[in-house]
Amino acid sequence: MRITLMLSAATLALIVPSIGLAQRNAMSEPAKVDPAVAKARDAALDDQVAWDIVEDLTTEVGQRLAATEAEARARAWAVIRLKKLGFQNVHIETYKMPVWVRGAETAEIVGPYPQKLVVTALGRSAATPAEGITAPVVYFPTLGDLMAAPDGSLKGKIAFISNQMEATQDGSGYGAYGGARFIGPNIAAKKGAVATVIRSIGSDKGRWPHTGGTNWAPGVTPIPAGALSVADAEQLERIFARTDKVTMKLVLTPRTLPDAESGNVVAEVPGTDPKAGTILIGGHLDSWDLATGAIDDGAGVAITTAAAKRLLDGPRPRRTIRVVWFGAEEPGGFGGAAYAKAHAGEKFAMASESDFGADNVWRFNTNLPDSAKAVGDRLAAALAPLGIVRGKDVAGGGTDVGPVLATGVPAVTLAQSGQRYFDWHHTPEDTLDKIDPKQLRQNVAAWTTVLSIVANAPEEFGPVTPNTSE
Amino acid sequence: MRITLMLSAATLALIVPSIGLAQRNAMSEPAKVDPAVAKARDAALDDQVAWDIVEDLTTEVGQRLAATEAEARARAWAVIRLKKLGFQNVHIETYKMPVWVRGAETAEIVGPYPQKLVVTALGRSAATPAEGITAPVVYFPTLGDLMAAPDGSLKGKIAFISNQMEATQDGSGYGAYGGARFIGPNIAAKKGAVATVIRSIGSDKGRWPHTGGTNWAPGVTPIPAGALSVADAEQLERIFARTDKVTMKLVLTPRTLPDAESGNVVAEVPGTDPKAGTILIGGHLDSWDLATGAIDDGAGVAITTAAAKRLLDGPRPRRTIRVVWFGAEEPGGFGGAAYAKAHAGEKFAMASESDFGADNVWRFNTNLPDSAKAVGDRLAAALAPLGIVRGKDVAGGGTDVGPVLATGVPAVTLAQSGQRYFDWHHTPEDTLDKIDPKQLRQNVAAWTTVLSIVANAPEEFGPVTPNTSE
Repeated sequence: MRITLMLSAATLALIVPSIGLAQRNAMSEPAKVDPAVAKARDAALDDQVAWDIVEDLTTEVGQRLAATEAEARARAWAVIRLKKLGFQNVHIETYKMPVWVRGAETAEIVGPYPQKLVVTALGRSAATPAEGITAPVVYFPTLGDLMAAPDGSLKGKIAFISNQMEATQDGSGYGAYGGARFIGPNIAAKKGAVATVIRSIGSDKGRWPHTGGTNWAPGVTPIPAGALSVADAEQLERIFARTDKVTMKLVLTPRTLPDAESGNVVAEVPGTDPKAGTILIGGHLDSWDLATGAIDDGAGVAITTAAAKRLLDGPRPRRTIRVVWFGAEEPGGFGGAAYAKAHAGEKFAMASESDFGADNVWRFNTNLPDSAKAVGDRLAAALAPLGIVRGKDVAGGGTDVGPVLATGVPAVTLAQSGQRYFDWHHTPEDTLDKIDPKQLRQNVAAWTTVLSIVANAPEEFGPVTPNTSE
Repeated sequence: MRITLMLSAATLALIVPSIGLAQRNAMSEPAKVDPAVAKARDAALDDQVAWDIVEDLTTEVGQRLAATEAEARARAWAVIRLKKLGFQNVHIETYKMPVWVRGAETAEIVGPYPQKLVVTALGRSAATPAEGITAPVVYFPTLGDLMAAPDGSLKGKIAFISNQMEATQDGSGYGAYGGARFIGPNIAAKKGAVATVIRSIGSDKGRWPHTGGTNWAPGVTPIPAGALSVADAEQLERIFARTDKVTMKLVLTPRTLPDAESGNVVAEVPGTDPKAGTILIGGHLDSWDLATGAIDDGAGVAITTAAAKRLLDGPRPRRTIRVVWFGAEEPGGFGGAAYAKAHAGEKFAMASESDFGADNVWRFNTNLPDSAKAVGDRLAAALAPLGIVRGKDVAGGGTDVGPVLATGVPAVTLAQSGQRYFDWHHTPEDTLDKIDPKQLRQNVAAWTTVLSIVANAPEEFGPVTPNTSE
């Protein structure tokens, strides 16, 4: 790709005559790369700051469940680290939220083939009695099969929803298969089920279950809802291949505690032009409780902070860069929502988050106003040597910055490869060893490139039509 | 390799002149392969019996901890399956043994960085009080470091022994690194430790800990002994890189129950010549309790049974083939010891077991008397097309058939590749999905080849000097 970009469009038309018009137009001569940007980008490939942040955070704090004392410890830790790194205006912005904590969780086939299965409660799951629920299991190969079940047909039964998520580079498998978790238990509850177990929304085949939030519609009484590991879901499918009379005992005793404090940690690289609008970037500080949250999302705060640190240590940028370590993303984006509310009306020139692990960035998208179209061209030219291609989608979305973007703030998104992410997402395997230091550095270089261009762009970034589909 | 074996030694000397004398001698013209043996071998590459056994056993019985009701269910299941397959003389031979069962197991760093770790008790571990032990941790990078610690220096402390096992094709890493588990807790107890945690003896980097038996010398009072997952041991090492003041709370409440019944399940392919001695093969039926024991050792009983079934369905062999599904291998080879004791003095022409997963057989060794040397040559020629090379070691060992081999019974061992085995060995990941059906069939073909040759060999298999070093 790098070589291709060095060729002129005319040369390409000669040597690749089979390429259609649209493609050839897309291969127009790239924008010039500012030598200072290139230098900052290339220097970031030796970054050590991101690794140090994610190693230290995951080692010295560990898991950081939202609105618990662990997340509070993480915020205190973050303030010390961000100040030590030299950021300005380091502070915490708090908010209150409900707290969901895990209890006991066991599952076993009572008959016909007695055996234990590995299960974990989904976020916002209701609790079984301490002694558990024992009930017949009804098998639904897909969410669609559950949706087709007659109302009331699940009365007194445990619904088992199985569908195997596939890994994709762009992470689209999560949306395609995740419905079993997002809305499956709610549908089962409406049809009378006493509990739901799903095949974990994961691309692995292992025995750790994947947690994650599930959602209850207004008026629906929540039921206990758990995820079996993919291996255990396959075991249950093998049992259903032999008999449709399966009885399961399920113990899930999570609790919802009184509202407690969570918070966002904020740090800034001051800009020279307060009127040019702030660049808002970050990831989320909280994690699920099963692991140390290295890829979800220690990596995200580490990458964005390390990139901002590179601008902090260079010439003062035109625009202020604000790094936010959002709180309470996992249980439903409380930090992002609180942030957007608290900063309504503030001028943001661009917002973007990193929350998809630490593997290489492979594509970027933008949502920039017409007045700043050239910025996209400069990004494309400067990111290409990192192996990053320009996407055709309108940038948007993200649980943390999504609420800010929804107000018409321009966006640049850096898409990381999702091929491995869902092997470990929301499981006890989300630990430091899953981060490839080289790919982490590529991320820092990509973010450094984006910040160097966007924070210093002379163009004005007016409001845009937000893409709310992502 | 197959092509090479088709070349004559003289041709090889010309085209590979750099090969030394010893190697050239080893490449002498191969023995002729009996067409009936080749046909049986090749047909076994389409075997379905082994997969069906291991799928059904792991699905319909699940885990099979020694001397528990689960292992008894497995024996009953085995009798039904073996009779259905048409084997003769199917029966159970019982014995009594102590029963060790797992209890609660949790570990957490109390300070300086509070967090939970994943731990599992080692077999024969003593128990902590129900409320656990909280004590300072002393870090030993290797077993040797623990051995060098002064007597009494661990009084009131938890010894943490860390050493990273490496995967090797021949599985030799287990012996090289396994000492931390086999004898580490015993050494720590003698030096005054109140408990021991080891880095799991596994070649993975994941968060499931590896159980397995540990051993107590006479006169040593057992202490609680657990294995941390490799990822958690690395986390603990990172913490020790920051401080040497680490406090851990450890809860391990396993129990030893009164002696109970276990047993070996026996099945036969009757031979035509009772005086020629019995061929004894098999694997072990019991498993650890954390998983369904697919690779350890559902695969072993499946492979050996499927191969014997192929001879059962063909012309009656000269020698009787006896397949034993040994009980209680994991807690210390109770089934194998009981078997050898009960059958002392019986004439065995050869004994061999399969207990190293289901990946390809890559090497074989023999321990045959001079009178049967040609059998080894015939094995080499017939196994070569399966990608199996002839080793230079004297065959021997195996927990189940070892006690029989120790009496001077000839041996043929088929070595499976150990590159992946210790990623999952003794963890909850020992499940059906870890078995590659194609490699499983290669195993059946290898065993079918060996049985076809050995059970029908006209040579007499007198006693040999046993190799007890393996």
